[in-house]
Amino acid sequence: MNFCSDCGARLERRVPPGDNRERFICDACDTVHYINPRIVAGCLPVWEDRVLLCRRANRPRSGFWTLPAGFLENNETIIAGATRETFEEANAVVANLDLYTIFSLPHISQIYLFYRADMTTPDHSPGFESLEVALFDEQDIPWDDLAFPVIRHTLEHFFSDRASGVFPVRSRDIIVDRDPKHFR
Amino acid sequence: MNFCSDCGARLERRVPPGDNRERFICDACDTVHYINPRIVAGCLPVWEDRVLLCRRANRPRSGFWTLPAGFLENNETIIAGATRETFEEANAVVANLDLYTIFSLPHISQIYLFYRADMTTPDHSPGFESLEVALFDEQDIPWDDLAFPVIRHTLEHFFSDRASGVFPVRSRDIIVDRDPKHFR
Repeated sequence: MNFCSDCGARLERRVPPGDNRERFICDACDTVHYINPRIVAGCLPVWEDRVLLCRRANRPRSGFWTLPAGFLENNETIIAGATRETFEEANAVVANLDLYTIFSLPHISQIYLFYRADMTTPDHSPGFESLEVALFDEQDIPWDDLAFPVIRHTLEHFFSDRASGVFPVRSRDIIVDRDPKHFR
Repeated sequence: MNFCSDCGARLERRVPPGDNRERFICDACDTVHYINPRIVAGCLPVWEDRVLLCRRANRPRSGFWTLPAGFLENNETIIAGATRETFEEANAVVANLDLYTIFSLPHISQIYLFYRADMTTPDHSPGFESLEVALFDEQDIPWDDLAFPVIRHTLEHFFSDRASGVFPVRSRDIIVDRDPKHFR
């Protein structure tokens, strides 16, 4: 961040009065520009005994399997964002969303929230960001080809909790170094 | 948003290829600037049978009672942010944070997350953003002088759930018009 998005003047980086962190400050129009974590909202879509996964068309982790998820938009509820992403990435319609897993990923300043969701029909097909979309039984989950740890954790919790029929909300911090091979 | 924060050129607003929403686009340096919802992380700090509230020193709702909460910072877990805000606003040290309530406020593009938390000592005092901080028994909660609906909902759930000893995670969307008198 180099220039003020309001007035175009060059920004300074310093701690504002009454604050305790460096911020990007515009002395021309007296604006402090904050940068905050972003929310990724997604679903674990379920049809009968199977769960819906998408094979990623984009980096990072192109070609690996993921749950449909993406950045929450302004003026959107988390449930609306998770529903929208599931339709955009998998052309799947979901209902009855129940919050299930929450992850903090401080190294990339992202918060993930996944909802268990019922597919209203078994229909699905690859959206723009997916190479392939498919329903998987538990024994067919491609565990070695999952895109991110948050996907693996969510699926592991799901199959474990499904055995008991109780699905408590699961929170977890994913603490990693910034080495790209550990990304997410 | 008028100017590119990277290169300082004037921004255009249009739908990028492969997207379905208008974004702020810099044609000089080929950057798309996204704007996303922000996360507010907070605590419901508990000491014995009492809960800790702060009287706000700042607008909006200056003079009204709130739970300690504030914007999550980059490179911070949600629990770290909620713990930090509780110390900044109330000089209270908390531990054993358990996720409790989650609110989507799409009209202001904010997501609130509150954690039940044990105070490690009964010590507390007003931080920079508080006029006053106090521990309240249930019968003394200033229900008519709470700052925001998310505070009232969280406290109502807490006292109701405390009777049963079970505290499931509670999610809720707060849908309001943009009239300032309904703000939050």
